[in-house]
Amino acid sequence: MRSDVVALLTDFGLHDWFVGAMKAVVLSTNPKVSIIDLSHEVPRHNVAAASFALLACYRYLPTQTITAVVVDPGVGTERRILAAESASRLFVAPDNGVLSRMLDREGYDRLVSVENDAYFLTPVSSTFHGRDIFAPVAGHLSLGLDMADLGVEVTAYERLETPSPRIEDDLLVSSVQWIDSFGNLITDCPVEMVDDLEKRWGRHLTISGTEEGRGRNIKIVSSYETVGPGGLLAIRGSSGYLEISVRGRSAAESLGLVVGDRVELGKV
Amino acid sequence: MRSDVVALLTDFGLHDWFVGAMKAVVLSTNPKVSIIDLSHEVPRHNVAAASFALLACYRYLPTQTITAVVVDPGVGTERRILAAESASRLFVAPDNGVLSRMLDREGYDRLVSVENDAYFLTPVSSTFHGRDIFAPVAGHLSLGLDMADLGVEVTAYERLETPSPRIEDDLLVSSVQWIDSFGNLITDCPVEMVDDLEKRWGRHLTISGTEEGRGRNIKIVSSYETVGPGGLLAIRGSSGYLEISVRGRSAAESLGLVVGDRVELGKV
Amino acid sequence: MRSDVVALLTDFGLHDWFVGAMKAVVLSTNPKVSIIDLSHEVPRHNVAAASFALLACYRYLPTQTITAVVVDPGVGTERRILAAESASRLFVAPDNGVLSRMLDREGYDRLVSVENDAYFLTPVSSTFHGRDIFAPVAGHLSLGLDMADLGVEVTAYERLETPSPRIEDDLLVSSVQWIDSFGNLITDCPVEMVDDLEKRWGRHLTISGTEEGRGRNIKIVSSYETVGPGGLLAIRGSSGYLEISVRGRSAAESLGLVVGDRVELGKV
Repeated sequence: MRSDVVALLTDFGLHDWFVGAMKAVVLSTNPKVSIIDLSHEVPRHNVAAASFALLACYRYLPTQTITAVVVDPGVGTERRILAAESASRLFVAPDNGVLSRMLDREGYDRLVSVENDAYFLTPVSSTFHGRDIFAPVAGHLSLGLDMADLGVEVTAYERLETPSPRIEDDLLVSSVQWIDSFGNLITDCPVEMVDDLEKRWGRHLTISGTEEGRGRNIKIVSSYETVGPGGLLAIRGSSGYLEISVRGRSAAESLGLVVGDRVELGKV
Repeated sequence: MRSDVVALLTDFGLHDWFVGAMKAVVLSTNPKVSIIDLSHEVPRHNVAAASFALLACYRYLPTQTITAVVVDPGVGTERRILAAESASRLFVAPDNGVLSRMLDREGYDRLVSVENDAYFLTPVSSTFHGRDIFAPVAGHLSLGLDMADLGVEVTAYERLETPSPRIEDDLLVSSVQWIDSFGNLITDCPVEMVDDLEKRWGRHLTISGTEEGRGRNIKIVSSYETVGPGGLLAIRGSSGYLEISVRGRSAAESLGLVVGDRVELGKV
Repeated sequence: MRSDVVALLTDFGLHDWFVGAMKAVVLSTNPKVSIIDLSHEVPRHNVAAASFALLACYRYLPTQTITAVVVDPGVGTERRILAAESASRLFVAPDNGVLSRMLDREGYDRLVSVENDAYFLTPVSSTFHGRDIFAPVAGHLSLGLDMADLGVEVTAYERLETPSPRIEDDLLVSSVQWIDSFGNLITDCPVEMVDDLEKRWGRHLTISGTEEGRGRNIKIVSSYETVGPGGLLAIRGSSGYLEISVRGRSAAESLGLVVGDRVELGKV
């Protein structure tokens, strides 16, 4: 699967030369490829947040894109590195669950344990596999390298131990997956479940999370303008998931919620 | 007007995958295009600041560049989307005034109201037109799509209600348009007006703004080294506008000024 | 030396349109080139830090890459601009020492004082040579311009007045060169010197820096997991230099050290 595009998703930030070094290695391997930065601001070592970010945007990548996801708290330990081929795209990442939500939805044609160091830089550092393994492997895959050359085929990948969003009795139970730079809380509740919720209980609900938010009223709306400044709202987000917002303010600060926190919506 | 380059100017920040998703869509549409990030750190929803940023840098873009400006507080409402063709470049943006300063100076050959959803993603979200409308439209324009295929031609664009810089009696009245990451205050006073000022009143002036800065002395200089550390100076900025700086410190903090604030320079 | 890649290393940050304007000029000059951002977050005007960042990553750039380093506190003064050709890459930067560590190690085939304004933008601003000189010169070099066309050949470059890391009596004396976004302290002590240290004194050492860190115990390890959370460790970093870390925390904050500070490791 030759590709014109390599995409990167990391927790490296842009302060240092780390992302630049990864791009340098990708372009050293394949000078013709375009590189897309999905984000480099995944909360550090937060595999679940990275897994969600990938889920939220991978469908917009050009078909055949090679995506390297480097959120890798186990770098330097014996964790496996996974290459995964779906019907339309390739991914390479530590096998720590970071690909699992995307693979659960997208399915896969092949999974390979990346072990062939002929495609790594020499020597491989113990702390920067992004530069020494993920970047050159992504570059070689973009040149059309067959995944089978990277290592042995495997049949399973690590999954995250995160509870699924669900409706329990009179409550929707979901959790905060990402807080965007505006302070909007992106949950794991798919918009289809929001449709269901609205049919059952209407658009006026209550929200419970940490103490600050317990029992506040919230309205499911289709645009921010529907509520006044400072108003709390639930909206079908552009990524396909329910988002909690406060108009003109940070919902994360208003409600005192962080990534991983539980959010419940219920009948008034 | 086929183009090799798409430029992006937004207020999305780089924390999330939003800019990455826009690039993914641009490259899905036209895999051969190069993408330039002008800035993604426009102060949120600040159309006037975005309008000035565009004015400050558009002339350096390659001719034929397609520029998408997405600072769009009205996203999801009935605001119009504008495509504009000047002699040498194309722009697509919400019709909220963000293109107006550039168009006032550059002029235009054609304006079109972008309405043809054949060039949008399906479905179009209510909150992320950057990904669903601006990115694919920019991509199609870069492939050579005729603007006429996007919608009906229109004859006017929204303007900002910002006062123009002017000399009133013994005062130059201007306003802060942008604060750069060093804390320099970039005003809307063009350098030609600074020449005029200097001829009238010399290089030693007073500056008034908020209380903190009222009545302080300031000198028009041609390099920072002309004043000592902590010294207040006015300089003809690289963007073609008067800038107020404090050597080695943030002028914004020293003077207590923010984007939009009025700045007056007068005779000593 | 025609090139497909231009790399940028600056202290401009990504808040403003400055880096975008540089890229616009590079692509106006050579529309086919790919641009790598090494970092734009060099501490402002910190030539020594930029010099180290370049040293840490230049070897990963594709051969023939043109790298523009714009950390230039002397912009607008009479400082020289240097173009340097090594066996495999080209560099253009102010002659303020920012290239010196790389050139000391890499050597060079030719040095030229960049003076031919036929390759600059017109007019050249006094404050933004990144856009008006470095970007177009890098673009022209990537098109294959001979360095000799840029100016006269010179035989020396400015060096930094920074002490070299050394072993004095019972102490390794080094200094902090860079603090990464995780708070790890990257020193100028090459990993070969760490090998030497370990042979002499073993893996258990003491560290002295500012008061906060004086006399604390530190262990040379090969992976972070070797120490417990909050533990202080020394590790051979991915850039080829000794790094001081605190597991799960910022070593910079824990030890109260900033870029340029002296760090001493000694026998227990």
